Amino acid sequence: MSKSILAGIKVLDLSRFIAGPHCAMILGDMGADVIKIEKAGVGDDSRHLPPFQGGESFYMLALNRNKRSITMNFRSPEAQEMLREMAAKADVVIENFRPGTMEAMGCGWEVLHEINPRLVMTRLSGFGQDGPGAMRPGFDGIAQAMSGLMSLTGDPEGPPMLAGTFYIDYMTAMYAATATLGALLSRRDSGEGQMVDVSLLESATALLTTALGSQTHRNETLHRMGNRDRYSAPANVFRTASDDHVLMLSGTNGLFKRLCGMMERPDLLEDERFSSVHQRMENVEAIEAEVAAWFGARDTETVLARLEEAGLPHAKVATPADVIDNPQLRHRNQILEIEHPKAGRFTTPGLTMHLSQTPPSVRRHPPSLGEHTDEVLAEWFGYDADRIARLRGDGVV
Amino acid sequence: MSKSILAGIKVLDLSRFIAGPHCAMILGDMGADVIKIEKAGVGDDSRHLPPFQGGESFYMLALNRNKRSITMNFRSPEAQEMLREMAAKADVVIENFRPGTMEAMGCGWEVLHEINPRLVMTRLSGFGQDGPGAMRPGFDGIAQAMSGLMSLTGDPEGPPMLAGTFYIDYMTAMYAATATLGALLSRRDSGEGQMVDVSLLESATALLTTALGSQTHRNETLHRMGNRDRYSAPANVFRTASDDHVLMLSGTNGLFKRLCGMMERPDLLEDERFSSVHQRMENVEAIEAEVAAWFGARDTETVLARLEEAGLPHAKVATPADVIDNPQLRHRNQILEIEHPKAGRFTTPGLTMHLSQTPPSVRRHPPSLGEHTDEVLAEWFGYDADRIARLRGDGVV
Repeated sequence: MSKSILAGIKVLDLSRFIAGPHCAMILGDMGADVIKIEKAGVGDDSRHLPPFQGGESFYMLALNRNKRSITMNFRSPEAQEMLREMAAKADVVIENFRPGTMEAMGCGWEVLHEINPRLVMTRLSGFGQDGPGAMRPGFDGIAQAMSGLMSLTGDPEGPPMLAGTFYIDYMTAMYAATATLGALLSRRDSGEGQMVDVSLLESATALLTTALGSQTHRNETLHRMGNRDRYSAPANVFRTASDDHVLMLSGTNGLFKRLCGMMERPDLLEDERFSSVHQRMENVEAIEAEVAAWFGARDTETVLARLEEAGLPHAKVATPADVIDNPQLRHRNQILEIEHPKAGRFTTPGLTMHLSQTPPSVRRHPPSLGEHTDEVLAEWFGYDADRIARLRGDGVV
Repeated sequence: MSKSILAGIKVLDLSRFIAGPHCAMILGDMGADVIKIEKAGVGDDSRHLPPFQGGESFYMLALNRNKRSITMNFRSPEAQEMLREMAAKADVVIENFRPGTMEAMGCGWEVLHEINPRLVMTRLSGFGQDGPGAMRPGFDGIAQAMSGLMSLTGDPEGPPMLAGTFYIDYMTAMYAATATLGALLSRRDSGEGQMVDVSLLESATALLTTALGSQTHRNETLHRMGNRDRYSAPANVFRTASDDHVLMLSGTNGLFKRLCGMMERPDLLEDERFSSVHQRMENVEAIEAEVAAWFGARDTETVLARLEEAGLPHAKVATPADVIDNPQLRHRNQILEIEHPKAGRFTTPGLTMHLSQTPPSVRRHPPSLGEHTDEVLAEWFGYDADRIARLRGDGVV
């Protein structure tokens, strides 16, 4: 086994909440030495989000493995000087403050680039570092709303709907990780670092696929469709007699033929209303009613067995408990249990990326607030216990 | 300006639909020379998905800039031999066939790694390359269902809901891009390529954040909450008198105070039912009813101006037309228009990642099927027009 991809790479993670911490965690999973620098006394805002386990927030636990935590008082000039000294020795700084905050701390891109031309500075924000809307408060839900994605989600009869996870935070994290690795790759040739600038709103609009073109070229506004496929039928979620929901996709002519076979309804194949994709879309409610009746009359086990037998793409809508027991996810090691000194053993998503020669790994539990302040200050600055006690007493760290 | 990050990197993109093509496009945006190798006569399945513009699918247009297209008959032994010869000279191969398909073509990881030890082979699939469920058909919706994410999305009174975009496809694309860049970085040290193996189901479960821990440690199943925040109130979507929807987050005590000021309702601040986050969660319907009444009595313009004035995080739920006109997105160049020889000028999401020294760029329009077959075969194999005509006549390309 070769060494980790990012072995020897030093990352300073000043970010809070989800997008920044997830990006830094990905780099940590790939072997970087990630120092999470948190606001003294308070820490990452996500430490205060319920639910908790042994005093640790589940958000914190889910997003911060493979990091060490130190604290600093970001308003202290002495701490700001320490930050610059650390940036001078680091490879990557990650931050997701409101634009201008790092500058106010004397740690803007110009300054850090001057101190350390090899540094990559990765900045995540709601709307980007510049522009007329850059200073608005930005959260995942705001980006889901402003990007148009919410308008495409939910039942057409109901309100626009947020997705049930902070997917724009995660997307932005992955754009940031991709760009950061790109910058590290580029540095191998140029010797120079650079500033990466990604935002929630832009990462959200990157997912609009056909919605922009439909609007500008066909003057056709895409609307939300509930669970109904936009371009073929029947493809929707149906309820079984056991009150589970099952997603089934059988919109193509080939799959529709299999579906009619499964339901023992050759008459539907002969029915003019359902004779092509176009016809089935025209009569989508009628064909869905036929399918819904079939699903509604059978228990989940029977429905799933028959769908499997017929070779129709489908999935039961899983609960979190189903996910934890999923044999494929277990086989792939994507449901992890990590030992934590305070929270005990907790369950968390796995490493997601499989690489044959240099796989990501879990080497550290998510840290408690300031768990490594003494260790890191000794390591980076050579400070002894007295010096660190003085800094703590002065409210610097 | 330095050269592109991936200048000189040769990528063979054999993938179809969304996740694989998006991953390859990201590498292309970063400067790689991406050859999209498509099934002769048919092409990427997404070429057949409506809507179309000048005969080109909007899906194709959205996911394939910065690529050249060639065709091959993947069942022809001669084409398979050509693929191996190309892999011998390439840096990255991307594929998202069902597991085993590349092996059946004589182009599995073992073979390609033997031919070209420096090659990175990036494989995207529904469920991963191995395991008891690896061979099931996998699509974005199937992963949304099986990961539990659907169970967390939608109104609690209604069915579990798909998000209005293929966000798991995009997440998987970004995990694949991150891992591929990691593998290229690692290759700089080791000289050796590796296999990257990511899946829709695993990428989806990576977004479960607190749902796994809540289940295993608190025996608490997370359920969908519609647009209501899980841990604070009021934070939801409200409808204005002009029939727009506006997301507003004012769940903390500080923001709630501002909200009551904005609504000129000091009485709510005195109301025992709303005196803390906990109390407001207990009486969430009552406090939301007060807010809904205020929003419902005012037009959108007034509501937005008052929210802005009060400093409350909020966003109007945008339509695609709003997004296209968003001044911040325009400033950031995230709404792009690309010229296409057949489709004309079309609107598409921008490059999303800003890098100060080596920014991504659009250098090529999304290709028509086989647009570059002659050019690429001449370039990679030195074949002349006669030889290419022979291959075409024999159904090899």
